[in-house]
Amino acid sequence: MLLKGLREEVLEANLELVRRGLVLYTFGNASGVDREQGLVVIKPSGVDYDVLRPEHMVVTDLDGRIVEGELRPSSDLDTHTLLYREFEEIGAVVHTHSEFATSFAQAGMGIPAFGTTHADYFHGPVPVTKPLSDGAIEGRYVHETGLAIVERFRGLNPMAVPACLVAGHAPFVWGTTPADAAHNAVVLEAVAKMAYRTLTLRASAEEVSQALLDRHYLRKHGKNATYGQGK
Amino acid sequence: MLLKGLREEVLEANLELVRRGLVLYTFGNASGVDREQGLVVIKPSGVDYDVLRPEHMVVTDLDGRIVEGELRPSSDLDTHTLLYREFEEIGAVVHTHSEFATSFAQAGMGIPAFGTTHADYFHGPVPVTKPLSDGAIEGRYVHETGLAIVERFRGLNPMAVPACLVAGHAPFVWGTTPADAAHNAVVLEAVAKMAYRTLTLRASAEEVSQALLDRHYLRKHGKNATYGQGK
Amino acid sequence: MLLKGLREEVLEANLELVRRGLVLYTFGNASGVDREQGLVVIKPSGVDYDVLRPEHMVVTDLDGRIVEGELRPSSDLDTHTLLYREFEEIGAVVHTHSEFATSFAQAGMGIPAFGTTHADYFHGPVPVTKPLSDGAIEGRYVHETGLAIVERFRGLNPMAVPACLVAGHAPFVWGTTPADAAHNAVVLEAVAKMAYRTLTLRASAEEVSQALLDRHYLRKHGKNATYGQGK
Amino acid sequence: MLLKGLREEVLEANLELVRRGLVLYTFGNASGVDREQGLVVIKPSGVDYDVLRPEHMVVTDLDGRIVEGELRPSSDLDTHTLLYREFEEIGAVVHTHSEFATSFAQAGMGIPAFGTTHADYFHGPVPVTKPLSDGAIEGRYVHETGLAIVERFRGLNPMAVPACLVAGHAPFVWGTTPADAAHNAVVLEAVAKMAYRTLTLRASAEEVSQALLDRHYLRKHGKNATYGQGK
Repeated sequence: MLLKGLREEVLEANLELVRRGLVLYTFGNASGVDREQGLVVIKPSGVDYDVLRPEHMVVTDLDGRIVEGELRPSSDLDTHTLLYREFEEIGAVVHTHSEFATSFAQAGMGIPAFGTTHADYFHGPVPVTKPLSDGAIEGRYVHETGLAIVERFRGLNPMAVPACLVAGHAPFVWGTTPADAAHNAVVLEAVAKMAYRTLTLRASAEEVSQALLDRHYLRKHGKNATYGQGK
Repeated sequence: MLLKGLREEVLEANLELVRRGLVLYTFGNASGVDREQGLVVIKPSGVDYDVLRPEHMVVTDLDGRIVEGELRPSSDLDTHTLLYREFEEIGAVVHTHSEFATSFAQAGMGIPAFGTTHADYFHGPVPVTKPLSDGAIEGRYVHETGLAIVERFRGLNPMAVPACLVAGHAPFVWGTTPADAAHNAVVLEAVAKMAYRTLTLRASAEEVSQALLDRHYLRKHGKNATYGQGK
Repeated sequence: MLLKGLREEVLEANLELVRRGLVLYTFGNASGVDREQGLVVIKPSGVDYDVLRPEHMVVTDLDGRIVEGELRPSSDLDTHTLLYREFEEIGAVVHTHSEFATSFAQAGMGIPAFGTTHADYFHGPVPVTKPLSDGAIEGRYVHETGLAIVERFRGLNPMAVPACLVAGHAPFVWGTTPADAAHNAVVLEAVAKMAYRTLTLRASAEEVSQALLDRHYLRKHGKNATYGQGK
Repeated sequence: MLLKGLREEVLEANLELVRRGLVLYTFGNASGVDREQGLVVIKPSGVDYDVLRPEHMVVTDLDGRIVEGELRPSSDLDTHTLLYREFEEIGAVVHTHSEFATSFAQAGMGIPAFGTTHADYFHGPVPVTKPLSDGAIEGRYVHETGLAIVERFRGLNPMAVPACLVAGHAPFVWGTTPADAAHNAVVLEAVAKMAYRTLTLRASAEEVSQALLDRHYLRKHGKNATYGQGK
């Protein structure tokens, strides 16, 4: 069996999404990439989480061709593989329909950087794509979903803002490892929840300053990070 | 005892509603129909869920006449039987006062199709009936509730939109089996919750395009479905 | 020990409020009355729920004079006893700071009858008192809280609408027994939650018709009730 | 090992924040002070709560110099120590990103005193600081956060209003002991939740009168307190 360790990590990330309440039924998926071998490990489509095991994971190449696995891969596979090809530093992708982040996506709104919880993880607002055109939807829809994300990130650093809302759909989140991507998805939902309440309390609420965004983001990231117990 | 298997399925659907937090005390009911025998199995009225057993289920004909059972059937029986007579493809009906779907019903608003979570299950907005007239309320009220649903579905396909909100009351949801109807009721509540937040974030939020509605609905339904592990 | 059975019922009602999430720390209390003996059983003040036992309950007369008990009674005692003196049919009183009902009380708004969940328990809107005057607050405050409720209920039947919101404070709820009053408090919170969402979805939402209010209320109450398994 | 008892109290307060749902991952910290020895005990930075033990706590002096402990202290240490130096009566400080209180902080709004739940703990609105200047953020940021709180409390009594929201950040809460500070943080979140709903129900909602604020606050605090079982 290929990539036993990564299969376990991907399974664990999928289960973490369930434990944290981000996933109803099977509405979510996580994957990881092995950059050396150019292989992706992803959850199979529509299988109940309580029976999922490492051997159920599907292994594909970076173009989504199945390399190992009996089951059909997640129907969102083509979005995952496109993100791996375009965002070369990421090691894992998570997709959920978590309630508050999805509500922003449905409203066609990004998530403003209203506070330090946000700034600790996202070095700027979490952007939202444009709605997909009818042509894109009727064509290679799942691939086009990935293209909309890539398009939206022109000029942005995907490592500094590790999430994107797809308009009328839901969030895609990434990270260095499956555990990191799942962690970012959990924080995204918490940040979305607080942004929702901030906006419904005061529609004119303002984002934090660039100085605060820098201070908090760089406190947890980069070579000068001071949070936690170091390496 | 008639319809032992269906009794168990109906009981299980009722319990699923409780486990998923859709039912407070006894405010909900599920039923199933055996089309060949023309018999309906429904929860008894006002019995605590934790003592419910298959033999407590009440069996009636499609006109609501009791065929087997010691207990009084759910007070909503006449709505269930009318739906079975009018919507010939459905195999089960669920009624809850789940919080968010009921809030839309109380506001007299249907649930717009704001995203793909919705489109995966409901091929268009979930409609709301007109308020019942005083005459209907003072007459055969429970039957009239069913009539309001049927009236509202003129021109709509109940298999493509398996739920209706009754104005000033709460949702009725259906499906092919009791498990399927309960599943649809759980998704309806999740979709209502996200639609509530979408609308309170942005009152002018727009529904997804017909193309997206078609793409997602047909991905999970019909002979060309690509989601899950196939049949 | 006086009134052993009623002590157990009152304790159980207090615990039910905790189990249902209506009470944070010790912010709630329940009492019951024995009409024949003219005695009230009430929770002691500020004692943790997990150590409460029947013998901790305090017994007073209808004027609040302690008849039996080592502990200080709930600080809201005078409101309870006034309600027992004024509303002769009630057998128990519950007071909580449950989140949504309290939010209406804080907004100085009654809870409109937006749906059948409401109508099944409250035969009209749940009223809110006027804010207490400074004189009332500085005088016999707890007694005055009860007076504000009694004043607000002039012309209303407390058995038909078994709850009142005290402006800037929280709900008082009653019933025939401690279990019934606690049940009403749980339903009040559910109804408040849905009314909150109804109003935030549509500020102009309308109450249900008198016909619907009558139909649902009388379905569960009075000699022609048809809900449940009868007596 | 220094201050064994206080270490246990501080650990327990940190765990209470987790149990009450105020903390996601490691987004929170509690500390306590020993006034006689002039020593502070604080949680280490970024350590998972489920492995935390008393010996992991870090002991510093009132200027934040580490006196005992292998681990790096909470990154918010300088705010804690400043509060201990400036607010001489407090014995413990808690910082969380609890959802509703943080939403008010993000909106740059204090929490109005809308009801008696609030008045029982906070003798007036819970204030919010000004946003920190770029200079403050780029300088001794954590210290400046404390300064913003102290500045905001000029003319206010920190024992009468034991919490402050830091704009664009989150609440800091204090008390006489770690358990008391954690208790205040839990109540703050409950009060913030109800204030949020009060304001979204009625934007023009009014605070309670000074008379009611006095009555409730003094009922639970000071030498004439009547709530609970006394000392």
